[in-house]
Amino acid sequence: MPKNRGEIMSKRILRVDMTKLEAKFEDLPADFVALGGRALTSTIVAKEVDPLCHPLGPNNKLVFAPGLVTGTKAPTSGRISVGAKSPLTGGIKEANAGTNFSQKLGRMRIAAIVVEGKHTGNDYYLLKVTMDGAEFVNAAKWLNKGLYEVYKDLFKEFGNKVGISGVGIASEIMGAASGICFNDPEGLPSRYAGRGGLGAVMASKGLKFIVVDETGAPGVEILNQEAFDMGVRKLTNALTTHDVTKPGGALNSFGTAVLVNIINEAGGLPQRNFSSGQDDRSEKVSGEVKADEIKKRGGQRPHFCSPGCVIQCSEVWTKPGGKDPVGVLEYESVWALGPNCSIYDLDIIGELNRKCNDLGLDTIETGDLLAVAMEGGLTEFGNGKGALKLMDEIKNKTPTGRILANGTAYVGKAFGVTRVPVVKGQSLPAYDPRAIKGIGVTYATTPMGADHTAGYAIATEIMGVGGTADPRDTKKADLSRNLQIATAAVDATGYCLFIAFAILDIPEGLEGVVDTLNGVLGTSLTVDDVPGYGKSIIDTERAFNKAAGFTEKHDRLPEFFLKEPIAPHNDVFGVTDEELDRVWGE
Amino acid sequence: MPKNRGEIMSKRILRVDMTKLEAKFEDLPADFVALGGRALTSTIVAKEVDPLCHPLGPNNKLVFAPGLVTGTKAPTSGRISVGAKSPLTGGIKEANAGTNFSQKLGRMRIAAIVVEGKHTGNDYYLLKVTMDGAEFVNAAKWLNKGLYEVYKDLFKEFGNKVGISGVGIASEIMGAASGICFNDPEGLPSRYAGRGGLGAVMASKGLKFIVVDETGAPGVEILNQEAFDMGVRKLTNALTTHDVTKPGGALNSFGTAVLVNIINEAGGLPQRNFSSGQDDRSEKVSGEVKADEIKKRGGQRPHFCSPGCVIQCSEVWTKPGGKDPVGVLEYESVWALGPNCSIYDLDIIGELNRKCNDLGLDTIETGDLLAVAMEGGLTEFGNGKGALKLMDEIKNKTPTGRILANGTAYVGKAFGVTRVPVVKGQSLPAYDPRAIKGIGVTYATTPMGADHTAGYAIATEIMGVGGTADPRDTKKADLSRNLQIATAAVDATGYCLFIAFAILDIPEGLEGVVDTLNGVLGTSLTVDDVPGYGKSIIDTERAFNKAAGFTEKHDRLPEFFLKEPIAPHNDVFGVTDEELDRVWGE
Repeated sequence: MPKNRGEIMSKRILRVDMTKLEAKFEDLPADFVALGGRALTSTIVAKEVDPLCHPLGPNNKLVFAPGLVTGTKAPTSGRISVGAKSPLTGGIKEANAGTNFSQKLGRMRIAAIVVEGKHTGNDYYLLKVTMDGAEFVNAAKWLNKGLYEVYKDLFKEFGNKVGISGVGIASEIMGAASGICFNDPEGLPSRYAGRGGLGAVMASKGLKFIVVDETGAPGVEILNQEAFDMGVRKLTNALTTHDVTKPGGALNSFGTAVLVNIINEAGGLPQRNFSSGQDDRSEKVSGEVKADEIKKRGGQRPHFCSPGCVIQCSEVWTKPGGKDPVGVLEYESVWALGPNCSIYDLDIIGELNRKCNDLGLDTIETGDLLAVAMEGGLTEFGNGKGALKLMDEIKNKTPTGRILANGTAYVGKAFGVTRVPVVKGQSLPAYDPRAIKGIGVTYATTPMGADHTAGYAIATEIMGVGGTADPRDTKKADLSRNLQIATAAVDATGYCLFIAFAILDIPEGLEGVVDTLNGVLGTSLTVDDVPGYGKSIIDTERAFNKAAGFTEKHDRLPEFFLKEPIAPHNDVFGVTDEELDRVWGE
Repeated sequence: MPKNRGEIMSKRILRVDMTKLEAKFEDLPADFVALGGRALTSTIVAKEVDPLCHPLGPNNKLVFAPGLVTGTKAPTSGRISVGAKSPLTGGIKEANAGTNFSQKLGRMRIAAIVVEGKHTGNDYYLLKVTMDGAEFVNAAKWLNKGLYEVYKDLFKEFGNKVGISGVGIASEIMGAASGICFNDPEGLPSRYAGRGGLGAVMASKGLKFIVVDETGAPGVEILNQEAFDMGVRKLTNALTTHDVTKPGGALNSFGTAVLVNIINEAGGLPQRNFSSGQDDRSEKVSGEVKADEIKKRGGQRPHFCSPGCVIQCSEVWTKPGGKDPVGVLEYESVWALGPNCSIYDLDIIGELNRKCNDLGLDTIETGDLLAVAMEGGLTEFGNGKGALKLMDEIKNKTPTGRILANGTAYVGKAFGVTRVPVVKGQSLPAYDPRAIKGIGVTYATTPMGADHTAGYAIATEIMGVGGTADPRDTKKADLSRNLQIATAAVDATGYCLFIAFAILDIPEGLEGVVDTLNGVLGTSLTVDDVPGYGKSIIDTERAFNKAAGFTEKHDRLPEFFLKEPIAPHNDVFGVTDEELDRVWGE
């Protein structure tokens, strides 16, 4: 039997005014109750932020929101969404990560933390959030330090059970390549809402860390336990039987980097700043080789990014002997910091990834900007030591570091490089759109800037999930649109996007997702409600971007993808503007 | 009697392919015959350049075009227009300068030089243009040198009668703050088509200099000598009687910097990176003080930028004793490098201006970016030596220099500064739009990015030319539109925009302009044809920008002008979005 909503504490927004250094709880407005994660961040940003404001000024707002089921026992649902106007794209941004930080917020019934205003002095603050409220702590002693050291100190100071979100040195210099860091279960600063420069937004406000202590939290309110439990069963069953997501399946065994060999084989693994789509050396940095090494070194694999995950694609990469644990080396990071820079050495990639985590940088943006810097002559392609030295420029806040920390497009301008792989200012992930067209349609047309997670056409084009599609076929508007809409919905729930592999193929899995939502919300949604829910999120985001000055001309790949054929297929992108515009029906 | 067009050589386009290192003459297409200057550069760019191309890639084109009457004895008509897709704004750009380089092209019947493609190696070239054709000379020996030295060498090598266009060190690093330099009558590199980063476009193609030798030039074809002569008489009469333009008038006596005291008095002279509109110290760098100093030092004043000017607002600023001649110190330059940086010392401003000329930098963009760098902490406001040192960073091509050379918006990002005075990426000139609203409407709505010359509302709002208008009145759409349209037409003729002061008030002056056009073209235009001609240029430019992704959201001033009141009026901009959109009727 559904419980009466009035019986227990309702969900809240924690509103943090950085100008006044005040934080207080508000009730979540009734019309926001069915919104979580990306649905809530995008709705609040669209409602409260002037699309023409300066992204690093007092009128931008940074919103943290756990998903609707986050904090429950629903499997693989520990995602947090972070939203704002992006200093990288100039449009609306949602980036998400898997972390128990989010589960704690869910259990505390904090639907969102909204950070607004801007501290006018030079100080930075840590915000400590408890059930009772929030307090500001001067963060001076944690400035100019790497996040591995700081997170260790913070867990010592605030106890091992807190969740921590923070920004690093790259954000202290307002780098648009900087992300927002969250702890993994070991307390490593390795889980990032990395994309779009949200770290700079947080830092611009004078906010350095958020520490969440869930002591006394009532847990997520579940209005229909029966529906919820049924949903958990169905979804768990789907996840544990689908080849991609099951224990011992591809993700669990080798992590996301299982894709290195697959995408290289498909000719879509960009090498040397997107100048080839294939290189035999890629195998040296494959998921298979990496998993082997982790075992030898005494790292961890499999591993979860947040408790309750049944996929467990994560890991802890270390130096030999288990030293200097990094956290996960994701496929995108391995590619960006590896083959895209002509680096085929997992130890160097691991070190580069560690530096990204330590400095608070998005690994995709960083790998892309390093490759552009290499093309611009700052160091040679393949020079791992040179790349590591460039990372130290950021650490030391040198002028070169300030150039690098501002992202790929910015680096291209500084060094006169014209092969600059960005859409809406955000750099491309690990799939060349000339070899795999559908993902290129997503890069071009998502409101987020180039983002593979926004509509992961690779699932269908390469992995045969949710049907099949020829990667080289240029008619991909429908595929990309449907995936973008489904993704937006998933990003609202708090489920990891990787559940999509299972629920695209197993109808009961999708039913399970909807059942858990009905359980939490006390609603009677059906699977047919999902597309409308997802589409409304994207409509909100596109309306914001339109008001910020975006048109269909921004839904395009850079010129070189249209003009420079790439090996091994010797093909250009080739998707027409009309096909791109068909995604959103214009 | 009109001559028969067929009798003599028709006008030509010199098409320069930098990929193949080939240059050849083409006949000017018949439908381009009535286009000159900005009308021709914008038409060719709009017709031949993909609006979404990379501005520094092979598919952008750089177009040089003298005005329609340039090279004749029409007074004050020595302007050259340069056009391309701008790396600073991402939109179409026309920048112009006064120089005998343009008059030579006119007399050689070269309607335009179109530079296209991109040299694939690392070499730079000098293009030598004669009546017979053009040849490429390797420019290696002139790289990494200041333009004062290089121009001296080039005149030695190619003779004193050539005209020279070139780009400096700031363009060698593809700086979006770099302009295209032309010689003044003394051969100094002091006349710039400065705005919009066109210097980087020229350098990106591998083109460093154009040397024009007009030996054997037939002169500008004049189809109706009688109409032409009548026009010259009428216009000369207007120019020599209007208070602003006449000999001994404001411009002639004190140069453009006569405005320093006037605009400071009006509270619209931005100080300290647009944080105040007035400062008593401004008087120390006024046109009156400067004219006095020039006399004492043995510089030149008055002086013309190109032969045949009857206004003669130019000058040659020097160190005491006439040493180290700079060329003109324009009002905009004095302001940008002076009060906007809290610098009130003409010697420092003169040195900064000399460095801009030497390195190939736009003085407005440079002054604005120095002020933002000061706000970002690179040196203190008012620190002249610090500012000069920053210029050396560009000269030495250091990482800091690369940041600075990319312009105001770019510097703002590097140092996390949010008070960044740009529209469409281009920095604001010397009038604060909170004190003088009409010029702000022009900044916002011209297709060029913030540009005072695009529709100089100051004439009416401050100087009472072409009527009067209260500077603080927010209804300025009509004023700005009419001026923008008239300006576009003037920019096609080759006349200096300063003739507008006279022809706005003296109807016979405007008739004279039209008569000279009829004289050259053999047409029967009337003054009523002028607005349509000007509007069609702007329509072409706006269509290009729209295809490049611009919307009315780009026709806005930065947020801080709307939110931060400025002294002494303590007013914000206050012009509504509706009023801005009324300029182009949307």
